[in-house]
Amino acid sequence: MIEAAIRVFHKKGYRSASIQDVAAEVGMLKGSLYHYIDSKEDLLARIFEDSAGRFETMLQEAAGLDAPPVDRLRSFARECSLWYLQNIERVGIYVKEWQHLSGKRLKEVVRIRTDYERSLAGLIGDVKEAGEAAPDLDVDHATYFIFGALNGLPDWYRRRGPDPAERIADGYAGMIVATVIGARY
Amino acid sequence: MIEAAIRVFHKKGYRSASIQDVAAEVGMLKGSLYHYIDSKEDLLARIFEDSAGRFETMLQEAAGLDAPPVDRLRSFARECSLWYLQNIERVGIYVKEWQHLSGKRLKEVVRIRTDYERSLAGLIGDVKEAGEAAPDLDVDHATYFIFGALNGLPDWYRRRGPDPAERIADGYAGMIVATVIGARY
Repeated sequence: MIEAAIRVFHKKGYRSASIQDVAAEVGMLKGSLYHYIDSKEDLLARIFEDSAGRFETMLQEAAGLDAPPVDRLRSFARECSLWYLQNIERVGIYVKEWQHLSGKRLKEVVRIRTDYERSLAGLIGDVKEAGEAAPDLDVDHATYFIFGALNGLPDWYRRRGPDPAERIADGYAGMIVATVIGARY
Repeated sequence: MIEAAIRVFHKKGYRSASIQDVAAEVGMLKGSLYHYIDSKEDLLARIFEDSAGRFETMLQEAAGLDAPPVDRLRSFARECSLWYLQNIERVGIYVKEWQHLSGKRLKEVVRIRTDYERSLAGLIGDVKEAGEAAPDLDVDHATYFIFGALNGLPDWYRRRGPDPAERIADGYAGMIVATVIGARY
């Protein structure tokens, strides 16, 4: 159901899509769908929750690696870029549609986002503490810079494009690490 | 009028804002405002056109500098970051609302965007040709990465925040240059 909702919201946009469209995509009657969800907004929130868990696990794995800070950052950068590319429709919906949530659901998405930022800032802070970051690097600005770059992926990446996700993820990881540890000269 | 529209769209969001709101902000009657513009979409398009000219000049100035490629890139990166920060409401409206345009106006915004991307890709390509880019750097991916990072600025930057725009722009310029020429090790 979540996958069907992602396909529909990706294709039609959240605002134009209806519960009826999602029901048709799952092959269910609209009434039966309401057995599982309360509203369209509920469906949007479920997509984010479902993604958040997987993304969180990935961040924790990178943070928990028994490796020097720069390697932990590189590992996170690569895994994160690859996850974004492999889940590009989800990420696109997140980037474009999160502000359609309201109340508790909005608060929850903002809380999760703040958690991600804190996790990445932690990885970058470790690089800085090890004396390996660019001189004068601002950890918060670097965090925003990197998430901005990642959130731009749905603007241009198409699964059928000529570049395999693995190659793009390697490139993005290299650029993210360079952002943090500074230029060669 | 453009400045008033920016303030209104920034505060209320394009979709919720009305021509009446903009008229009130300028201190005009709604009917008089229609003397200058056709519709709310027209007003949105004018904001983008107005910004595009200034941004374009800045790009050309950086490209025309009599300096080595890396310095041209650094100059562009700093000026561009500073311009984004000093025009953060415009940039925020651009990033969030451009898809509300339609027809010719949408085509025009997409064309301008493609021009920007080509200009930045040109600067990055010059660094690469001079043999000073990171090994294996993909010029297109670096271009998208950098515009993504810049377009993320309205998500967090507030004019009244504690960090002066100049300091943030210096930091962003350093990160952008590092993205292109590669990490120190």
